[in-house]
Amino acid sequence: MGSGFRKFIEPYRITRGNGFRLKGIDPGDTGGLTADKTEARELLEEEKERLRGLQEALYAQDRWALLVVLQGMDAAGKDGTIKNVMSGLNPQGCQVISFKAPSSEELDHDYLWRTSKALPERGRIGIFNRSHYEEVLVVRVHPELLLAQKIPSALVGKHIWEERYQDIRALESYLARNGIVPLKFFLHVSRAEQRKRILERLEDPEKNWKFSAADLAERKHWDHYQAAYQDLIRSTSTEEAPWFVVPADSKWFTHLVVAAAMIDALDGMKLAFPEVTPQQRKELAIFRTALEAEGGKRRKRS
Amino acid sequence: MGSGFRKFIEPYRITRGNGFRLKGIDPGDTGGLTADKTEARELLEEEKERLRGLQEALYAQDRWALLVVLQGMDAAGKDGTIKNVMSGLNPQGCQVISFKAPSSEELDHDYLWRTSKALPERGRIGIFNRSHYEEVLVVRVHPELLLAQKIPSALVGKHIWEERYQDIRALESYLARNGIVPLKFFLHVSRAEQRKRILERLEDPEKNWKFSAADLAERKHWDHYQAAYQDLIRSTSTEEAPWFVVPADSKWFTHLVVAAAMIDALDGMKLAFPEVTPQQRKELAIFRTALEAEGGKRRKRS
Repeated sequence: MGSGFRKFIEPYRITRGNGFRLKGIDPGDTGGLTADKTEARELLEEEKERLRGLQEALYAQDRWALLVVLQGMDAAGKDGTIKNVMSGLNPQGCQVISFKAPSSEELDHDYLWRTSKALPERGRIGIFNRSHYEEVLVVRVHPELLLAQKIPSALVGKHIWEERYQDIRALESYLARNGIVPLKFFLHVSRAEQRKRILERLEDPEKNWKFSAADLAERKHWDHYQAAYQDLIRSTSTEEAPWFVVPADSKWFTHLVVAAAMIDALDGMKLAFPEVTPQQRKELAIFRTALEAEGGKRRKRS
Repeated sequence: MGSGFRKFIEPYRITRGNGFRLKGIDPGDTGGLTADKTEARELLEEEKERLRGLQEALYAQDRWALLVVLQGMDAAGKDGTIKNVMSGLNPQGCQVISFKAPSSEELDHDYLWRTSKALPERGRIGIFNRSHYEEVLVVRVHPELLLAQKIPSALVGKHIWEERYQDIRALESYLARNGIVPLKFFLHVSRAEQRKRILERLEDPEKNWKFSAADLAERKHWDHYQAAYQDLIRSTSTEEAPWFVVPADSKWFTHLVVAAAMIDALDGMKLAFPEVTPQQRKELAIFRTALEAEGGKRRKRS
């Protein structure tokens, strides 16, 4: 990656969470770029072109996978990021899974069951729109959801969130070791910007469908959610599974950062198209001769 | 559990593997029971009766699950143990998953994907006939299988088995914390007894279908497998996910030990049928009156 992109990553990448403060990152930050959208649009197009090339190599080599985790408050821009950043990708190598309220079958299993089932195959980019982190977010803010998980009460103690962080860290370290690289994004939107976006959903007929009364209800728990995010980022940021706290008040900047981080992660895999051995090359030549001869016969016949 | 059963568990339960030696447990051990099969049969029937009752409470309470992992060399008695010990259970609350050679879809995922998907629901007994431990057994004895898993070669180093032990320990600790209790059995058969059993499969027409030439091929790797078993038992025996090294030269004794360990684990859950609150009891009375009245009308009409 050209060093130009790197400045959109480093300030937001958390690999050691100790002492991390959410307030240390400004949701309105645009990485020194002015609001000149032309420059931003050009940069994003450049990034998307890079992503397409890397995805092709990822798919052809069929060894690594990328697990993109998108988290954020309502209206932080998760859906828009998927639409904008991922639209150029080949859908055959890209799967988006949106996690909503769990089904009763899912509640009947361990809390990592539904996300583990949905992990991407090798060669693919898997995108989690919300994820296993909801288990330490919405479940933490609404502890009645923990009851619905039917865990034996003897096992639910005051260390449950720390235990969940531990289990999630272990899971992500396992995935990274096995070539399924976790990349976690918290789209960090300000309370004022969220208000503006929810209002738009109420006012703009084309955005009405996006409005949900539940968003307003959750907004009341804003501080609790922010505290839960800060706590989980402190506890689950590692070298092999970093969090990116992405300023999300300017959508175009969110997209730039997410794309840049994905490029950086794919670059780190040192992807290469599978090599053809001299023996295979010899075989390819034989197949080619055979096919060409067949074409010759056809032409003669007709 | 009556203290009578406990003597069939303690000698074989490994919760701290350091220094464990497979040779320390005699495959021919029968726990002081003579070959008098009547006594053994009566004991087993008693155990199975206990198991049935405990399973009913497990299912009704719908909080805990039991994960029974069965491992062993070919002809060690895995299938027979399932048939004999589990046959009295209600199949609605009991699922057996046999793991064979992985499919190409499974190989395209992380190595714990296929077993994690198959974990039991709460309220159930899940039985793994072979399991995730094959990933440090057959894959270790036949390293070419590791290549088939398409892990990026940069990630496959000399610590891979130790890393897999770590990941498996973390997984099982997570499961135990969430009420899915792992219980792992290594059916410890002697080489001579295996020979006898495979010969029976060749000689007895009713057992012919059980014979596979692959078993003979694997038998050649006997020492390598024993070393791999000893190593994994040393590294993955914990308080919350113990290994039971079960003498397996006498089938009836294997069954006694497995059933006793299952009873002990279910006992430890302190299962209880869901309690009915006074309010619920009042409602039940109303429903009952309504249903009885309905019956009364019917009788009058007819």
